[in-house]
This record gives sequence, structure tokens and C-alpha cells, in this order.
Amino acid sequence: MNTEIERKFLVADLPDLSGTEKAVVRQGYLTAPDDSTELRLRQKNDRFFLTLKGSGAMVRVEREAEISAEQFDTFWPETEGRRVEKERYTGRLPNGHVFELDVFLGDLAPLRLVEVEFETESGAKSYIPPDWFGTDVTADKRYKNKMMAINGAPD
Amino acid sequence: MNTEIERKFLVADLPDLSGTEKAVVRQGYLTAPDDSTELRLRQKNDRFFLTLKGSGAMVRVEREAEISAEQFDTFWPETEGRRVEKERYTGRLPNGHVFELDVFLGDLAPLRLVEVEFETESGAKSYIPPDWFGTDVTADKRYKNKMMAINGAPD
Repeated sequence: MNTEIERKFLVADLPDLSGTEKAVVRQGYLTAPDDSTELRLRQKNDRFFLTLKGSGAMVRVEREAEISAEQFDTFWPETEGRRVEKERYTGRLPNGHVFELDVFLGDLAPLRLVEVEFETESGAKSYIPPDWFGTDVTADKRYKNKMMAINGAPD
Repeated sequence: MNTEIERKFLVADLPDLSGTEKAVVRQGYLTAPDDSTELRLRQKNDRFFLTLKGSGAMVRVEREAEISAEQFDTFWPETEGRRVEKERYTGRLPNGHVFELDVFLGDLAPLRLVEVEFETESGAKSYIPPDWFGTDVTADKRYKNKMMAINGAPD
């Protein structure tokens, strides 16, 4: 169980990706956006996960279990029409912050988003992004993966 | 993936249960009744299952995977307030039909329900239940496990 404090930005210019760790990710949602709970299947390279996110506004419960390929395959068909595919590059900014850069594939290409995680809310608020970051879309729900999985990328 | 044709009855008189197979079952729902999908965790004796049921009216998709105790324990806390506990006795009626008799425990006691499964709709419609069956509640949604898990037993 954990909670996250993070900010999300568009990517103005792709940075040098050498030194980052690349993963191929596909994820799909077993639940609809209006449902009380979010259940997400995710494949990250050759590992598989089922993640539940609660509907709390301030603090959102998150529970995740690693699952087998067979378990993944049992439920994956039910995510049809609610899927996202992306390459995820995880790296570290010069100031030490970890970033996750998502390069979307398929219908969502050429969208790119970058997220930075923080320990504290004050750290998140006072953060000054590097030049290669674009518009701050932290508060824009249209950029949530589960929304884009259904509605596509925002205009 | 499968679909089920079944009828459900209250139990007027408990039958002789020798020759039946008994299982202790606890199940809980990760989703709310109004959600588009139903996801159910179930422990049956020492085995664990995750089952998804779609929202189709005529034909309802059902997908189930056996899961580990650890995977079960990861998500079980999120079913709080949406749980059912029962003893399930599986047996065969003199006419050959398999029945599942549920004796509910906890808040739902002393409710008992029995279900009979059929190959065809005409078989279900023409079925004449034995004397120990009570009222037919097949069409009464209040007797669905996921409804009783939240609302308790009907009056």
C-alpha cells in the first residue's frame, strides 16, 4: 500500500536517453473510469502485475501483486478498448530526482509525458523543471493513462 | 469463459447432507454493485480464485484464475464491507441434477439457498423442484451474493 506525490509534464524536447533504463509496457483496465475502483493489468518487459487503486481523493490506496503470464492472459481480453502501450525510460535528473519518461505507441503516438516523484508536497510545489520539460499537466485529468486508454490523447 | 443457466431457491427443509461435498467459502467483491464489471475474490477451503464477470444482460462473460494465498491477501482488505461467508454443500438430486446448497454464516445466517444448474433454458423452465426446496428466488436480485454482501439478507 502506498501513496504518491508526483508532477507530470509534456515533453518539449527528448533528452539524451543514454544512461536511462528502458522498459516496454502495455497496460489495460478491467474497470471503467466511473467505477468505484480501478483495476489495472500491466506487462512490464517479461513481468506481469495486477494493481488496484481506490477512489479516495486525498489519499488513494494502491495495492499491487505480481501475477503469472497465465493469470495475465486470462483477464487481458477484458481490457479491450481500454489499453495503453508505451516505452518507459527511467532516469535521474542532474538534481537527483528520478524521472519516468513515457513515449506512447499505437493510437497515442507521438505523445510523450514525463513524471517526477517527490517525498513531500512542498518539494513538489517548489520544483523547477529542466528545459526539456514542456507544459505542466499534473492537474489535467485528460492525461491520466486510464482516460487516454479510452478517449485517446488530448488535442 | 463460460455462461450459466441456473435456478435459485430458498431452502424449506435441510436435506440429508451425507454424500454431499462440503466446502468452506469466503468471498468478497473488489467492485461495487453499480460498477461496469464485477471482480470477486474467493477462498474455497485452501484454494484461492479471482473471478471477473462482465455486465452483459443476456450473455455474461466470466473469467476465472486460480491465485496464490499471497495474491489473495494483497487484495482481500479492499473487500471490507462487501463479504460473504458460507458453507457450500454440493450434491446430486435423485433425478441426476447437481445442486449447490449454501448455508450462510455471520451476518447472513440463518439464510440458506440452493442452486441447480441446467444445460438448456427449456430444461431450466420445465424443472420441478423437490419438496425440500422453498420459494423460487431466481429472478430476485436481492438474493445475489454481491447484493447480500452489502445489503445483508432480504427481509
